[in-house]
Amino acid sequence: MQQDVATAMKTSLEQSVIQALRSVLGDGSCVLHEPRFQGNEQAYVQECITSTFVSSVGRYVDRFEQELAAFTGARRAVAVVNGTAALQVALQLAGVQAGDEVIVPTLTFVATANAVHYLGATPHFVDSAEDTLGMDPAALKDWLKHVAEPTAAGSRNRHTGCPIRAIVPMHTFGHPCDLEGLLTIAHDYRLALVEDAAESLGSYYQGQHTGAFGELGALSFNGNKVITTGGGGAILTNDERLADHAKHLTTTAKQPHRWDYVHDEIGYNFRMPNLNAALGCAQFEQLPSFLASKRRLAERYAEAFRGVESVRLMREPKDCRSNYWLQTLLLDEAVADQRDAVLTATNDAGLMTRPAWGLLHQLPPYQQCPRAPLSVAESLARRLINIPSSAGLA
Amino acid sequence: MQQDVATAMKTSLEQSVIQALRSVLGDGSCVLHEPRFQGNEQAYVQECITSTFVSSVGRYVDRFEQELAAFTGARRAVAVVNGTAALQVALQLAGVQAGDEVIVPTLTFVATANAVHYLGATPHFVDSAEDTLGMDPAALKDWLKHVAEPTAAGSRNRHTGCPIRAIVPMHTFGHPCDLEGLLTIAHDYRLALVEDAAESLGSYYQGQHTGAFGELGALSFNGNKVITTGGGGAILTNDERLADHAKHLTTTAKQPHRWDYVHDEIGYNFRMPNLNAALGCAQFEQLPSFLASKRRLAERYAEAFRGVESVRLMREPKDCRSNYWLQTLLLDEAVADQRDAVLTATNDAGLMTRPAWGLLHQLPPYQQCPRAPLSVAESLARRLINIPSSAGLA
Ligand SMILES: Cc1ncc(COP(=O)(O)O)c(C=O)c1O
Ligand SMILES: Cc1ncc(COP(=O)(O)O)c(C=O)c1O
Repeated sequence: MQQDVATAMKTSLEQSVIQALRSVLGDGSCVLHEPRFQGNEQAYVQECITSTFVSSVGRYVDRFEQELAAFTGARRAVAVVNGTAALQVALQLAGVQAGDEVIVPTLTFVATANAVHYLGATPHFVDSAEDTLGMDPAALKDWLKHVAEPTAAGSRNRHTGCPIRAIVPMHTFGHPCDLEGLLTIAHDYRLALVEDAAESLGSYYQGQHTGAFGELGALSFNGNKVITTGGGGAILTNDERLADHAKHLTTTAKQPHRWDYVHDEIGYNFRMPNLNAALGCAQFEQLPSFLASKRRLAERYAEAFRGVESVRLMREPKDCRSNYWLQTLLLDEAVADQRDAVLTATNDAGLMTRPAWGLLHQLPPYQQCPRAPLSVAESLARRLINIPSSAGLA
Repeated sequence: MQQDVATAMKTSLEQSVIQALRSVLGDGSCVLHEPRFQGNEQAYVQECITSTFVSSVGRYVDRFEQELAAFTGARRAVAVVNGTAALQVALQLAGVQAGDEVIVPTLTFVATANAVHYLGATPHFVDSAEDTLGMDPAALKDWLKHVAEPTAAGSRNRHTGCPIRAIVPMHTFGHPCDLEGLLTIAHDYRLALVEDAAESLGSYYQGQHTGAFGELGALSFNGNKVITTGGGGAILTNDERLADHAKHLTTTAKQPHRWDYVHDEIGYNFRMPNLNAALGCAQFEQLPSFLASKRRLAERYAEAFRGVESVRLMREPKDCRSNYWLQTLLLDEAVADQRDAVLTATNDAGLMTRPAWGLLHQLPPYQQCPRAPLSVAESLARRLINIPSSAGLA
């Protein structure tokens, strides 16, 4: 009898979620996030091919960079091949070197930690805040009290002796994290702050666009992001010197010369091809309408899930304007054990949903890295479900 | 008087070169290499955008990989974001690790050494052969006799104690290097051979396509290459297991799962976007005609430069079929001091030419690396001039 009631309740959570989703999305199937090409995509890409400038230089790259800077309010934007490359170079220019340690959230896409690793540095994992899904300043402070000691040059890990060089907050699913709290701590411990803003184009913290609060930030234009260039990313910064250096490093560090090929440091081939930038320029024109559509979808989901017990739609944090890139449900801890049943039922019904990423400190390649207590992120990872979020659904 | 004759001779070399170039290229200006889009480029790219699959998966990526494998005769091809990334992953899969040493030519584009560096390994520079412009087996052998000693696992540098893990021959401007000689040495010293075939799509050594003679090889589809994807590259290999691993590593090492995000090693975001692969598929259809055109151009240049004293057009090495990607003049050593005058005069005349890359052992970031005697490469670098080479010029 007890068992039957439990089963009935479980069925009812899955059914309620599907019903709420259907009330917004209608019948038929829905992917998690798909791009939308209803503007000048074909025209710009055609023009790009006709011009033969499809590759490393071209006016779409320049235009895309200018538009990104203007939109985000960052002084400069440097277009690159993807968000991972943007993050790697941003970290390098923020001073991260081999042997350093860098603090990242455990609740993020693996690229955040990979970028640290590519530079020969070690990621530390810290906890997230329930209200932002991003790096928790209180948890960061506790962790630094525990591991960091001041040196002439900044902070050092008192256990390993290695410099702790930077923190990399990430704006999860487009919800800005508590930048003010994090900037204060970064300042106190003399750590660089590099924003992983891969998911937050169109998201604002206290009225200012995310991505250039710290020394540098990284955007992504992967196929699943708010706007896409096929594959692409950008480095944002308010520092002209860092921007020039970012451009130099990402274009093989070749010195300008009429014909000589001299590279004055070890650079990367991380440039965004003009072909991809052409797509980006067309997408960019539609960004305001994509953002409006995503905001409407959030309203409609909020309405639809108001009546569903034990489930809450993630809303933008206080003093923030989120881009609502990926819409997110949070199950109550009491029903967290039903998450997989909800995932199975929704996906079986053709409504694509997915859980949070595997927490980074639990992934095989990062299990040995230092970590703070991570109970909030662990709880979020048990309870979190992303639901269909494409622009155009509302 | 003596002085006047010398001046007259100098003028005459520049003028002869321009005259010979004009006899082939006609009036008007000519860039070094530009892509040609006269096939299905617009159609495929449009179809790609209409399908919305512009990013990390899509049928053009699969098709491009299959066509590359079929054309080159390699068992598998894995499309990636550019040639540098291809080389980095090829080296990693060939066993190159941090602390290792890897032997590369000094006469190559900087990416060959950068890929080694990204893995935390150190490049050694060896000399080139005059007849191929590529790594010289005799010079390699002398160098290994000098630095390498055998160990249970392969070879070790007797001075540094570090493993010497691999050699990376490169097919300069599309001319195959002496693979047979190099393979023998690689075998004797138990070194992996990874081909930098960035420039040699369509080039054959003893009837077999370059790029899969060693464990793995790397192609580039940068805007200046025989065919272009905007930016792009591919890993070639005959080993299915290595190919699967290359695909896994270049797509963030995510385990296949309906919704879980688990990455079982530290991978890369090195996938080629479907948008770029669409361009590549259209370009690929025209590869035979591009190759034929480049071969005709070589014939016509050979004819035109036959009468020009002190200058020789680089022709395909013995037992090889070159793609003639970049056409190359070699000045006699006696007139090498006139190279810059020729470069200036030709570029001023709107005929784009350029010298060889700065030799890698002379670049600031690589000056401290070990190096064999490099007199042939140094001579080639003094004497070499690339001339307009686009498909469609003949
Ligand atoms: C949080 C986060 N960081 C970094 C990245 C890396 O961006 P990309 O996929 O463009 O390399 C992504 C997106 O995939 C992301 O979501
Ligand atoms: C010899 C050589 N190696 C590597 C590369 C790197 O290829 P990519 O520019 O596609 O990264 C190139 C081409 O630029 C090259 O010419």
